[in-house]
Amino acid sequence: MELYSFRDDYSEGCHSSILDMLQKTNLEQQSGYGDDDYSCKAKEFIKKKVVDEHVDVYFTSGGTQANLIVISSALRPHESVISACTGHINGHEAGAIEATGHKINTIVSCDGKIRINDIQKVLDEHAHVPHVVKPKMVYISNSTEIGTIYQKQELEELYEYCQKNSLYLFLDGARLGSALCASTNDLLLEDIARLTDIFYIGGTKNGALLGEAIVISNERLKEDFAYQLKQKGALMSKGRLLGIQFFVLFENNLFFDLAKHANKMAEKLTNAIKKENYNFLTESQTNQIFPILPNTLIEKLEKKFEFYVWKEIDTKNSAIRLVTSWATQENRVDEFIDELSIK
Amino acid sequence: MELYSFRDDYSEGCHSSILDMLQKTNLEQQSGYGDDDYSCKAKEFIKKKVVDEHVDVYFTSGGTQANLIVISSALRPHESVISACTGHINGHEAGAIEATGHKINTIVSCDGKIRINDIQKVLDEHAHVPHVVKPKMVYISNSTEIGTIYQKQELEELYEYCQKNSLYLFLDGARLGSALCASTNDLLLEDIARLTDIFYIGGTKNGALLGEAIVISNERLKEDFAYQLKQKGALMSKGRLLGIQFFVLFENNLFFDLAKHANKMAEKLTNAIKKENYNFLTESQTNQIFPILPNTLIEKLEKKFEFYVWKEIDTKNSAIRLVTSWATQENRVDEFIDELSIK
Amino acid sequence: MELYSFRDDYSEGCHSSILDMLQKTNLEQQSGYGDDDYSCKAKEFIKKKVVDEHVDVYFTSGGTQANLIVISSALRPHESVISACTGHINGHEAGAIEATGHKINTIVSCDGKIRINDIQKVLDEHAHVPHVVKPKMVYISNSTEIGTIYQKQELEELYEYCQKNSLYLFLDGARLGSALCASTNDLLLEDIARLTDIFYIGGTKNGALLGEAIVISNERLKEDFAYQLKQKGALMSKGRLLGIQFFVLFENNLFFDLAKHANKMAEKLTNAIKKENYNFLTESQTNQIFPILPNTLIEKLEKKFEFYVWKEIDTKNSAIRLVTSWATQENRVDEFIDELSIK
Amino acid sequence: MELYSFRDDYSEGCHSSILDMLQKTNLEQQSGYGDDDYSCKAKEFIKKKVVDEHVDVYFTSGGTQANLIVISSALRPHESVISACTGHINGHEAGAIEATGHKINTIVSCDGKIRINDIQKVLDEHAHVPHVVKPKMVYISNSTEIGTIYQKQELEELYEYCQKNSLYLFLDGARLGSALCASTNDLLLEDIARLTDIFYIGGTKNGALLGEAIVISNERLKEDFAYQLKQKGALMSKGRLLGIQFFVLFENNLFFDLAKHANKMAEKLTNAIKKENYNFLTESQTNQIFPILPNTLIEKLEKKFEFYVWKEIDTKNSAIRLVTSWATQENRVDEFIDELSIK
Repeated sequence: MELYSFRDDYSEGCHSSILDMLQKTNLEQQSGYGDDDYSCKAKEFIKKKVVDEHVDVYFTSGGTQANLIVISSALRPHESVISACTGHINGHEAGAIEATGHKINTIVSCDGKIRINDIQKVLDEHAHVPHVVKPKMVYISNSTEIGTIYQKQELEELYEYCQKNSLYLFLDGARLGSALCASTNDLLLEDIARLTDIFYIGGTKNGALLGEAIVISNERLKEDFAYQLKQKGALMSKGRLLGIQFFVLFENNLFFDLAKHANKMAEKLTNAIKKENYNFLTESQTNQIFPILPNTLIEKLEKKFEFYVWKEIDTKNSAIRLVTSWATQENRVDEFIDELSIK
Repeated sequence: MELYSFRDDYSEGCHSSILDMLQKTNLEQQSGYGDDDYSCKAKEFIKKKVVDEHVDVYFTSGGTQANLIVISSALRPHESVISACTGHINGHEAGAIEATGHKINTIVSCDGKIRINDIQKVLDEHAHVPHVVKPKMVYISNSTEIGTIYQKQELEELYEYCQKNSLYLFLDGARLGSALCASTNDLLLEDIARLTDIFYIGGTKNGALLGEAIVISNERLKEDFAYQLKQKGALMSKGRLLGIQFFVLFENNLFFDLAKHANKMAEKLTNAIKKENYNFLTESQTNQIFPILPNTLIEKLEKKFEFYVWKEIDTKNSAIRLVTSWATQENRVDEFIDELSIK
Repeated sequence: MELYSFRDDYSEGCHSSILDMLQKTNLEQQSGYGDDDYSCKAKEFIKKKVVDEHVDVYFTSGGTQANLIVISSALRPHESVISACTGHINGHEAGAIEATGHKINTIVSCDGKIRINDIQKVLDEHAHVPHVVKPKMVYISNSTEIGTIYQKQELEELYEYCQKNSLYLFLDGARLGSALCASTNDLLLEDIARLTDIFYIGGTKNGALLGEAIVISNERLKEDFAYQLKQKGALMSKGRLLGIQFFVLFENNLFFDLAKHANKMAEKLTNAIKKENYNFLTESQTNQIFPILPNTLIEKLEKKFEFYVWKEIDTKNSAIRLVTSWATQENRVDEFIDELSIK
Repeated sequence: MELYSFRDDYSEGCHSSILDMLQKTNLEQQSGYGDDDYSCKAKEFIKKKVVDEHVDVYFTSGGTQANLIVISSALRPHESVISACTGHINGHEAGAIEATGHKINTIVSCDGKIRINDIQKVLDEHAHVPHVVKPKMVYISNSTEIGTIYQKQELEELYEYCQKNSLYLFLDGARLGSALCASTNDLLLEDIARLTDIFYIGGTKNGALLGEAIVISNERLKEDFAYQLKQKGALMSKGRLLGIQFFVLFENNLFFDLAKHANKMAEKLTNAIKKENYNFLTESQTNQIFPILPNTLIEKLEKKFEFYVWKEIDTKNSAIRLVTSWATQENRVDEFIDELSIK
């Protein structure tokens, strides 16, 4: 019997309407390198959703690619980027940022989020010019790598602080859909565009075959950005493939609908786990949850489900990571819940 | 009326059987990052076609990405790569190779190919150690950027020379299908694997939505290659997308069938153009041809077809580039030929 | 009245015998780029002192230069270097290592030293291949940036561990003279060469005008090292300037004599401060000491002496850094001690 | 008998007054990292000589270091630098510029100089945005690597063109002294500062032990420049060593006096060689000359003198390179001339 996977949100292909669109447009001749009709229209859709016609939009095939291009494009050689130690760029990208020449200044953060005080401390530690790097960008993720989200006030404070301190604010939105559709979220997509210098909207983890959409608000960061895509190998000759993903996700509300489904499935799991009186490693309202379960129960669950054992808590309990997605089947969630309660 | 395009070989989507396979497997849960069943099987298919079970195979989404990863993975900081001046890495990749820290030593070449004497001259010019870079890799393309191909004896000589001089031989096969299916070709895919240290098989320009398959024969170049993919942002989380492209292309002979069609269409154009007594900029047996036509005729053709005007020859004539593909429609080729002959 | 400085060990020029040698040899015609007689002889002297004729020796003008060249020469793109968070490469070199493309994995260390367990923990955290960097080198400083030193047994254990785990061990010896002449030291210069893969001997902070001597034991790290010097701008055309520094320091025992003087002056300060019942931030037997003094006393001392206030301890006390050198005048040390005791 | 060398202009140490100043100031305590009194005063002297108080001045230990720091500091990742193919950065620096991530666009030039038309051609070839690099800087050398110099009108035209085309003009002045003291020169040091964005004054090849003085006129290039020095390992802790070189060279007119001597010696050689009816490879008015001599004569000369055989002209004749310097002894020049005429 095959195990059902809660390991990640990229185990399935893509939403069927994306495949339909690929099929429908397949034999049309289109311009290459992102100048196709679908990329152009997708960019227009996104501009509308962020309520700002002046942003620039670019597509990349994945998040690490987006991160390394954005950061290396923005920074001069001596400039660094500030990240939570849990930040994807810090521990999950094989040194992609450093490979472009830049140091990451890490902030220890229990909930994966960054606060103004943390940043100020980094700046204070880098006063000994020119013996130190110059922090110039703040990298945040929403939702974070451990499922938490930023509230509107938090993002406003961060952005205001960054503006005052000549820091770029860059938001990694690999799981932005899930963040914006969380029950406790009070941010709109347009707030994200307004309260950052640059950010991206993750497609890969929210129903697309591939693709992240980089949105640039800051004029200075727009300059010559297309070159960076090409130089880093991110400019696909069949750019239509990327364009179609975002065309379909943003033509109507599919992007948000898919994220809502993922969150709903996670919430169902969370409620059931809480009902059984188990605790969680982090407070998550998004599609990644980290329940702490007895090892005996974990072993039992592993016979039917796939997931990561995230962290040893004590000799008898561990935190696991459960990830839901646009494709998670509710009956499988129910099966998981059933397993929980059977002693 | 819409123009029919002979501008490139990536104007259409992909062969329908790839879309079918995407559809069929879409909701299966598969491992991420290239560990899915389709990537694994595609790699096995390729190993069989190159008749060498010991090669390593990796997929990237495009050619620039493949080039920069292969070269930066192979070279130490002071080492350089030798390329024809027409080489894709030299003038068409926005400095992708230099951005990883390496100089390109260029060789002037009329037909886009590199000979042993050219390489020897580069080595001779780099004898003043340690004031110069150390050429360590030879980069060739087959077919070349101007449509020509390598003969078996040429490749054998190159490889032997490289072996003797401790140079890696790297073959860019973005259009390898077309090369191997050219009427004058005498190389097999297995010869390519045997007579290079590393090469790649282009999918994007031969019927796939995206994807190049890197094949590594040299043990030293295999070491830790997966890290390079991740670091450069090339490791797709939904690796199945790439796997399926090559699964379908190499399960049977689709890869070669598609290339043959492209070549056949180019040959038909070539024969018709020759019949009208026009010359060509280069001798091409592949899917890119460069006829020299009167400017008046070019203007007439531009009313019905899209193509690049490649080079001014004199005040009255120019070379144009016509590219055919797996998707080129024969009736459109016939229309083009008709236009040629109507005075 | 001018203040006497205990701020660092590079405030004065160089030992007079170096100037004498520069004068004496000034108008001789010598080969450039390190092929002069004095560089050659200096290398021979150093090979004798490390009792290993097979090491390779190169000179650079400074420590940051030596660090970035050694590390970028040794590592492939995906490989990283492990350092104490206090390591010079981590916080004092303006991102020099990252600028060559490599991540630094930091270890929190109270005494500036690295232990096997710390390294093992870093390795354990980097098991998720290929999503992480691959730690490949361990960087240690002796003496450390906070004045402590490695004992022979510690270095033996580190080297053995590194050998077993395919890690290069690289020792930054910017203040190696002071370390090897510390009262509690049990390491010889030859032990350093034997128990590391590569290290350097600091001249700048021990009586030379400039210069660090890189000593390479590991065959693999010797390959093509000269190119790296040239590429990073470290190969001086008048290499004799560097050669003469080390010629004079190592022709006899000047290198060690100068370090002993610096340590003796630091020891005298330490004893006097202890006598006054003040504590120290770190246990140092070398030429950098970190006493914790009342702020009122610090203010008084600042009227006659220059030094860094290193760290606030509480509202009334701070740690200061006092650095002695080959040029420190004993009567000034006595004056400092006098100031301490006058209430 | 030892051979007398005309191989280069860095065979001897330095002018005696530099050694005297090192001696005189040796035991003074001075601030590190270029904040010493001598560096500060030397910068003032240079500002006076370029008649512009607003330039920024920095010292590096050598030319390759200066080149790589200036270029990597000025350019964004996708930007390239245009150079003559004979330019030092192109073939004599082991890939130093590419190692910082930037492509060099080369111009074939017989006399080592660059003209506006050449640059325009490079710009024209880089119109296919974003598939190409973006040329952003022009690198010239004065005197050039083959002894020629720029006239005032040529530099004015270049600078005006660069201004119009948003290109930085960077002048490598490793041998600027010799250029400005050439008999046909009509440029003043202040013209160089006025007609470039950034340039440097070579000390190493004009009587200093080491050192190049970078002078920055363009406001944009001044920003955060000190960080670049530190990051690339060029910020010497004993910065006084560099400061004193330029203090002595520019306190009065020593810099120009030394260059004049070198040129005078070269001129004497040139005149004598012309008198014997030999030709030259290039027209040089500086301290590097390239006479074409019979191989038999060359062999004879090699018994008493050292010099590079630069290029084979035909089976019987070769061009050699003779370099004179501030330290060249006139009686040795006379001996060389005597050898020429004795048949």
